[in-house]
Amino acid sequence: MSERTLGIAVIGLGGAVGTTMVAGIELLKLGKVDKTGLPLSELDQNSAKDLAAYERIVFGGWDLNAENLAAAAEEHEVLNHKQFVAVENSLSKIYPWKAAVDERFLSNIEGGNFLPSKDHREVIKNIVNDLKKFQEICDQVVVINLASTEKLVDESSEEYSSLAAFENALDAGSENISPAMLYAYAAISTEIPYGNFTPSVAADIPALIEFAEMQNVPIAGKDGKTGQTFIKTVLAPALKARELKIEGWYSTNLLGNRDGLALSNEDSLRSKIKTKASVLRNILGYEVEDHIVDIRYYRPRGDDKEAWDNIDITGFLGQKMQIKVNFLCKDSILAAPLAIEIARCLDLAKQRGDSGIQEQLSVFFKLPMTKYESPEHAFHIQNKHFLKWLNA
Amino acid sequence: MSERTLGIAVIGLGGAVGTTMVAGIELLKLGKVDKTGLPLSELDQNSAKDLAAYERIVFGGWDLNAENLAAAAEEHEVLNHKQFVAVENSLSKIYPWKAAVDERFLSNIEGGNFLPSKDHREVIKNIVNDLKKFQEICDQVVVINLASTEKLVDESSEEYSSLAAFENALDAGSENISPAMLYAYAAISTEIPYGNFTPSVAADIPALIEFAEMQNVPIAGKDGKTGQTFIKTVLAPALKARELKIEGWYSTNLLGNRDGLALSNEDSLRSKIKTKASVLRNILGYEVEDHIVDIRYYRPRGDDKEAWDNIDITGFLGQKMQIKVNFLCKDSILAAPLAIEIARCLDLAKQRGDSGIQEQLSVFFKLPMTKYESPEHAFHIQNKHFLKWLNA
Amino acid sequence: MSERTLGIAVIGLGGAVGTTMVAGIELLKLGKVDKTGLPLSELDQNSAKDLAAYERIVFGGWDLNAENLAAAAEEHEVLNHKQFVAVENSLSKIYPWKAAVDERFLSNIEGGNFLPSKDHREVIKNIVNDLKKFQEICDQVVVINLASTEKLVDESSEEYSSLAAFENALDAGSENISPAMLYAYAAISTEIPYGNFTPSVAADIPALIEFAEMQNVPIAGKDGKTGQTFIKTVLAPALKARELKIEGWYSTNLLGNRDGLALSNEDSLRSKIKTKASVLRNILGYEVEDHIVDIRYYRPRGDDKEAWDNIDITGFLGQKMQIKVNFLCKDSILAAPLAIEIARCLDLAKQRGDSGIQEQLSVFFKLPMTKYESPEHAFHIQNKHFLKWLNA
Amino acid sequence: MSERTLGIAVIGLGGAVGTTMVAGIELLKLGKVDKTGLPLSELDQNSAKDLAAYERIVFGGWDLNAENLAAAAEEHEVLNHKQFVAVENSLSKIYPWKAAVDERFLSNIEGGNFLPSKDHREVIKNIVNDLKKFQEICDQVVVINLASTEKLVDESSEEYSSLAAFENALDAGSENISPAMLYAYAAISTEIPYGNFTPSVAADIPALIEFAEMQNVPIAGKDGKTGQTFIKTVLAPALKARELKIEGWYSTNLLGNRDGLALSNEDSLRSKIKTKASVLRNILGYEVEDHIVDIRYYRPRGDDKEAWDNIDITGFLGQKMQIKVNFLCKDSILAAPLAIEIARCLDLAKQRGDSGIQEQLSVFFKLPMTKYESPEHAFHIQNKHFLKWLNA
Repeated sequence: MSERTLGIAVIGLGGAVGTTMVAGIELLKLGKVDKTGLPLSELDQNSAKDLAAYERIVFGGWDLNAENLAAAAEEHEVLNHKQFVAVENSLSKIYPWKAAVDERFLSNIEGGNFLPSKDHREVIKNIVNDLKKFQEICDQVVVINLASTEKLVDESSEEYSSLAAFENALDAGSENISPAMLYAYAAISTEIPYGNFTPSVAADIPALIEFAEMQNVPIAGKDGKTGQTFIKTVLAPALKARELKIEGWYSTNLLGNRDGLALSNEDSLRSKIKTKASVLRNILGYEVEDHIVDIRYYRPRGDDKEAWDNIDITGFLGQKMQIKVNFLCKDSILAAPLAIEIARCLDLAKQRGDSGIQEQLSVFFKLPMTKYESPEHAFHIQNKHFLKWLNA
Repeated sequence: MSERTLGIAVIGLGGAVGTTMVAGIELLKLGKVDKTGLPLSELDQNSAKDLAAYERIVFGGWDLNAENLAAAAEEHEVLNHKQFVAVENSLSKIYPWKAAVDERFLSNIEGGNFLPSKDHREVIKNIVNDLKKFQEICDQVVVINLASTEKLVDESSEEYSSLAAFENALDAGSENISPAMLYAYAAISTEIPYGNFTPSVAADIPALIEFAEMQNVPIAGKDGKTGQTFIKTVLAPALKARELKIEGWYSTNLLGNRDGLALSNEDSLRSKIKTKASVLRNILGYEVEDHIVDIRYYRPRGDDKEAWDNIDITGFLGQKMQIKVNFLCKDSILAAPLAIEIARCLDLAKQRGDSGIQEQLSVFFKLPMTKYESPEHAFHIQNKHFLKWLNA
Repeated sequence: MSERTLGIAVIGLGGAVGTTMVAGIELLKLGKVDKTGLPLSELDQNSAKDLAAYERIVFGGWDLNAENLAAAAEEHEVLNHKQFVAVENSLSKIYPWKAAVDERFLSNIEGGNFLPSKDHREVIKNIVNDLKKFQEICDQVVVINLASTEKLVDESSEEYSSLAAFENALDAGSENISPAMLYAYAAISTEIPYGNFTPSVAADIPALIEFAEMQNVPIAGKDGKTGQTFIKTVLAPALKARELKIEGWYSTNLLGNRDGLALSNEDSLRSKIKTKASVLRNILGYEVEDHIVDIRYYRPRGDDKEAWDNIDITGFLGQKMQIKVNFLCKDSILAAPLAIEIARCLDLAKQRGDSGIQEQLSVFFKLPMTKYESPEHAFHIQNKHFLKWLNA
Repeated sequence: MSERTLGIAVIGLGGAVGTTMVAGIELLKLGKVDKTGLPLSELDQNSAKDLAAYERIVFGGWDLNAENLAAAAEEHEVLNHKQFVAVENSLSKIYPWKAAVDERFLSNIEGGNFLPSKDHREVIKNIVNDLKKFQEICDQVVVINLASTEKLVDESSEEYSSLAAFENALDAGSENISPAMLYAYAAISTEIPYGNFTPSVAADIPALIEFAEMQNVPIAGKDGKTGQTFIKTVLAPALKARELKIEGWYSTNLLGNRDGLALSNEDSLRSKIKTKASVLRNILGYEVEDHIVDIRYYRPRGDDKEAWDNIDITGFLGQKMQIKVNFLCKDSILAAPLAIEIARCLDLAKQRGDSGIQEQLSVFFKLPMTKYESPEHAFHIQNKHFLKWLNA
């Protein structure tokens, strides 16, 4: 693998996923954990040769909570005791930068480590400064958005329709511009790749896609495909291949961490459910009459997450059958390695000179960004496209 | 689709799956059911053009039970009342031919409709006669084995090692030659394709593979991939793609039909479990330490079948997670359409002049027959190979 | 058992549960089904001696849908074909009486078989007339409410607080008086016992409790305890007995029949969820922090109903464990026999001279009516009280 | 509660359950855990007044493994890190006494800390010596058997039929006398109560029951009712109360600790399954046609245990329904508090002068010992009897 230093600047660094990314890489450097769960860890030498080595990754990032990452790791309870002891010292030295914030897009906010100004241009300047300082110690920086889900915006807004309109809206202090968009704008303007692991609208508006192409910056998103949707996009194509008709798919999710709390806000929840619901039609070629997705904030689970899916299918002679899938998973444990791989791939794309939407990274996302066509959701097809690109 | 008449000669015609095949095609002809559950029913016109039309399929076959198929359908309770009424008349005219039988390979046998002789050559002659008579009303005949699972044989036996050795064993009345082998031999000798939907050892011995190649006959098998293994070969490759380590996979099966009763015989059970257990290593590239497969005869279910799978996985930072899949399915409803498609594909292979093992049909089997290499089990790869052949 | 004729007048006669009650009793009379599922069918002779014989039950009742019960049975698909054929003739002779209706309490209404007037007193007069006519052919009539759930009302309303206030509200045409209350008033005024199988507010307001006591009429309710809550009130006391702390209980329900459609109305849903949520505190003696109940209208299931419960418990040393219960049930099959038993017990109470709230029937209800104390929810305690009364 | 010191002498002290008992009580003494999971911790003052205080319990016991309990706790991974640190010191001072052992009754044995002699009388003398030394520091000693399950013996053996016959067999060095019986004999001879938490045959043979009565010693057993059977004996009576017919009950168990390994021995497994299978007939009053119990040694789980139960029921009109229960539990966490309560209750019985079989402790056992009648299995009835005794 490449010996270059890759710097990942995480929006929401002190969250459960961000902390897990940092702690995981530190533990890897110390040889205290192996690479299980990192999707690209078993590539042959040749495929992996231009990807940054896991051990050469360094972290920075923003968070509303000013506490250092050792304190964050203690709160999120993602590490076991031995792991915590091993990385406590190095984590305690990482303090998040001041975050951009806007209550119109995210309520349920806790923590006071934010940028004072409400002037969009000034916020961007601050973010750019953070990035430039970070660039001094890395060969390449990539921004990954792991912040709590913002409320759904009207994506057809005139202000998002072109770079020019967006620049005007920035100057005018438009209230339609979200923190996620400011981060994306700042990254692109600094020629830094941007990956959106959240369902929030960010670099996926026409204005920022245009900007990314102009700046020759690769962007990718959105909403990491970790648990339930991952399984859904694996099973649905196979049921289709057997021509088993899906009559209903009821998906429920229980989650108890800070992300769950954010989703207990109706607006954020709507944003999240939207990205979960659109996959089946694309894969099956027909509308599932009853496709219901439910997400619940359920405290007993903490960072553990549970998905229960019930699938009603009709087979030969019109006979009905059922499949139920119960996935007892850990949100951060599934998400952190994907976020790391997205960063490595965006770095690779940047090296190769690829710019704009990186559609081949669809395999990592619930709602893949595409330029012209509707996205491919079937996992095995996404993976085929991805591996082809990787080995190009 | 082709206007030719395809005759399917079913070993075990009066069983639940055989009856469902016949009733299903009759209901299709009458327009009483649609093609849901038939995997190749949604192919575009071009891909499907040389496949026999579903409506042009006719049935014959052997069964130990002499009753006509209307009586069999009533016993198996696979059809609902309206469906039964619609096809009762046509089913009542189909009487199974006398079956080959050998208590050394299958105990728990019921029914008296069998060939009297224990002389292998005479049994073969009878089977060939049945097939020749059936050929008179079809453009092409294909034999599909749906009989109850025979006990496991020692596949390395000298008598199976070459066609010459096998011919000698036939003449000598060897007790290592099973009914399934006699059917396969008879079909191949008559230049009729042979598909093995059961786990029994049949055309997969070297002697009969050699014979099939010599006779220019396509053969395929074995053990139809309907429920649990289907799901297993869909999920395992995706977990591998995410580098989630599978520590254990516990699979239990409850089934209550005549097949379940046959499997309550220890020898047949061993044969069945063997075909179920071998898939994971192939897909994952490592041995799952605790891969347990359990099959139980459980009468309350009748033809309904239930699979419960528990999968223990390890992810990033060595953290453990679990996936549980509960598949409430109907054995015959899943199996019958696959058996129909295998027959149509073997007919297509015969038209194209393909002979010997049809490896591209792996997508339909739990334990795909291959000539040189170990079989591919990952469902999406099997399907890719299959579609490529179909569209060749 | 008693040789008296018991007439059950069902509100919502043509619904799935009502139809199942009638068809079930008719099938019993014909000897076509046994008494499985009828909770009091295995009582010893002595305990059962004053209960009306199942075979001596006759039915009448109201429904918005004017079609006869054979047509209703065909629509609800509760009977198998043989059962339908056996009772089609007798069911086709039963036509529902015109129902009371009020759109303020129940939207999603279909059917035109309702009483024209909006004058409360006139509606009551009509209901009383129906009951008096029905009394002519029975030794005793009991009214059972099986109508769709009405929207939640403010039970502390002044108009419900005493019989006098309620009478005034009736005269004034108050819009707070629901159809369910009119039926209850009519029954009580005619000295006919009234059982409420639904979550709607009816005889459980102070005014009607007072009226029932004055008229010497037994009443009981409410909301039949069929599936999920039944299991919940069985498991929770046992977990308490082991001092396993319940941290969270997530209950989801999928149902696809007309009742499910009614519950897709927000107001009715709130009424239903309220009766489901209150049971745990009573049994455990503490508040479960995350007790979530979700009910979804999910069409693929039809009358089949599914409950999935996830229970998070903490045991010794603060260690966490989970129990998951998946109940694949049939709504009408569970509800109809309970409704029959409630009617038989109300008849028995009437014979014994018991009046007012019949608390000993709590074993049949999700939200038992009580006079002074909060209700007992633990199933085994309810059953103990019930059996003691029965054998008194 | 009583201020007396209760000494619990555990057979299999260093096992997962034994270690959890000791560590749990130590943590309680330190105020580091609360009493969650201890069934009798919430009794009112009066009911509990003669039970030994949890904080006044001390431990001793035998184990094949000589390591101290701190080492055992580390191996079993039952404690979290903070808990381990808190009790490491006190646990490290407890070393198991030399255990009795016999390969005819328990293979898969590991560890060398056993009594050298095969002379039954000498083994008994050693055990008695251990007990007498332990008595010096306690007001009352109770023996609890937590050793791995021994192979099934023929309980009708002549040698077990009376105390006299058993004494002769002891003298003759009979090979039908198991270590579990020697411990029971030694305890009873020393007037120390004996509780059997395992399925092994011990004090439940006529000879030892006779001996216990003669010595005025209370005994109880057997096989702690922790997980699956607990749930089974809770659900089955409720299904019976609703007259829902149980057609089949399929119970599977996955467990990965040392107990699971012992059960991978066929003989021990048979012993265990026997105690699990007998409960349904007793509760239901009829034989469930397909009641299947499966137990699997499955390493990925470690001390975590999983039960999956599938229940097939028939309701009104002969319609079929299913209930599935998935219990993700921790063996030692459920077992240790029950073992503690059994010891406290045996101590109470001894104080009260109760001798012989303590049938009222059935609530704690899968296969309750009874003197004349067949045991009661329904959980709520067992609990009623138990509470009545406790409050006597």
